Amino acid sequence: MKTSIKAFIFDVYGTLFDVHSLKKVCNDLYPEKGDEISQSWRAKQIEYFFLRQLMGNYEPFLKITHDALKYAIKEHHEQLDEQNEKQLLEAYLQLSPYPEVQSVLKQLGHKQLVVFSNGSHDMLDPLIQNSGLSNFFDYTISIDEVKQYKPTLTSYRHALDTLGVKREEVLFMSSNGWDISGAKNFGFQTAWINRNNLPTEELNLVPDSIYSDLTGILEWK
Amino acid sequence: MKTSIKAFIFDVYGTLFDVHSLKKVCNDLYPEKGDEISQSWRAKQIEYFFLRQLMGNYEPFLKITHDALKYAIKEHHEQLDEQNEKQLLEAYLQLSPYPEVQSVLKQLGHKQLVVFSNGSHDMLDPLIQNSGLSNFFDYTISIDEVKQYKPTLTSYRHALDTLGVKREEVLFMSSNGWDISGAKNFGFQTAWINRNNLPTEELNLVPDSIYSDLTGILEWK
Repeated sequence: MKTSIKAFIFDVYGTLFDVHSLKKVCNDLYPEKGDEISQSWRAKQIEYFFLRQLMGNYEPFLKITHDALKYAIKEHHEQLDEQNEKQLLEAYLQLSPYPEVQSVLKQLGHKQLVVFSNGSHDMLDPLIQNSGLSNFFDYTISIDEVKQYKPTLTSYRHALDTLGVKREEVLFMSSNGWDISGAKNFGFQTAWINRNNLPTEELNLVPDSIYSDLTGILEWK
Repeated sequence: MKTSIKAFIFDVYGTLFDVHSLKKVCNDLYPEKGDEISQSWRAKQIEYFFLRQLMGNYEPFLKITHDALKYAIKEHHEQLDEQNEKQLLEAYLQLSPYPEVQSVLKQLGHKQLVVFSNGSHDMLDPLIQNSGLSNFFDYTISIDEVKQYKPTLTSYRHALDTLGVKREEVLFMSSNGWDISGAKNFGFQTAWINRNNLPTEELNLVPDSIYSDLTGILEWK
């Protein structure tokens, strides 16, 4: 089974890149509250993906990320002036990749390597460019092309249609439990990168593999 | 505007009833971790409404509540034996109404009063019966009748269709920001019962009124 994988699809935020590398900027601007603001920002961003999808009110990643930031700042009784706002949103284009990413991508080099994200191209493309990883990837696919957030079936189908392989020939990687559940629900093989040592989601959708970082996926190459 | 309301629709969990009245049972069974388990249980339950709806994998309230409980217990490195499980799920049928509920319902008595919830009838009906409030309500409506969780448009439309009033003649009440956003998105008048003093959601859907408890809605009668 494991040797039949033709395409490795990577989620971006939290999987290739550490969203909480934003903590530093948050802490610079809001001393002592930075960690909490960063956590709250990310949680609200994900909630807003879900809610806008459920309500049929699509807005792209940047708008949702901006709105989630405004909420997180208000929740922590702070002010968001124009300069802080600019600095925080721009930090999204400069996230740090996790330390093992480059080495893993190098070792998978002869396979189809793909980025697939709830992010839109205005955010994804500069991030991957800035990270120096862009040469590794054959495709950068955004749900913005179909305006259906993960974990809808349509979103994963869009990624599959772009690649021209069979769904069981895909290994999908995410650190987000909800994203792995969605990918498994669609029929991808899945490797959950369980960076935070969390329990498996109770959604009757068990990941095919669970690793603490991306190094583990090398057994699928 | 406020005097034209014909139907008052109440969300249940968190709005009429205090979900964290489960904390006591959680603390009895898991000393010192009860508050956290209760919080985590509720958050996961809501996430699973959203995820199952997005993935097209509907399961009713009891199954989701049970699954969310299993997750919350694992997250806190505890065991869920059969007896604890039974006790915790049964506690869902004995939640405490908030202190002002009965008095407010009494003062609204000549209007159409309605319960509308993500809960299914096997959970909702005994809860309302046990609380002694059932005589106040003209309808108990569950999304289980259409198998579409709030905040989808279909779920709110189902409530409206059941009542036979115009959507702008409805005042919808919820303590949940996502539920108020969904109801406003559908076109109900909304009163957000902001029991936890949270910021307004950043979803471009502003509630018509915001109150700290249900007493405030009396100005709509």
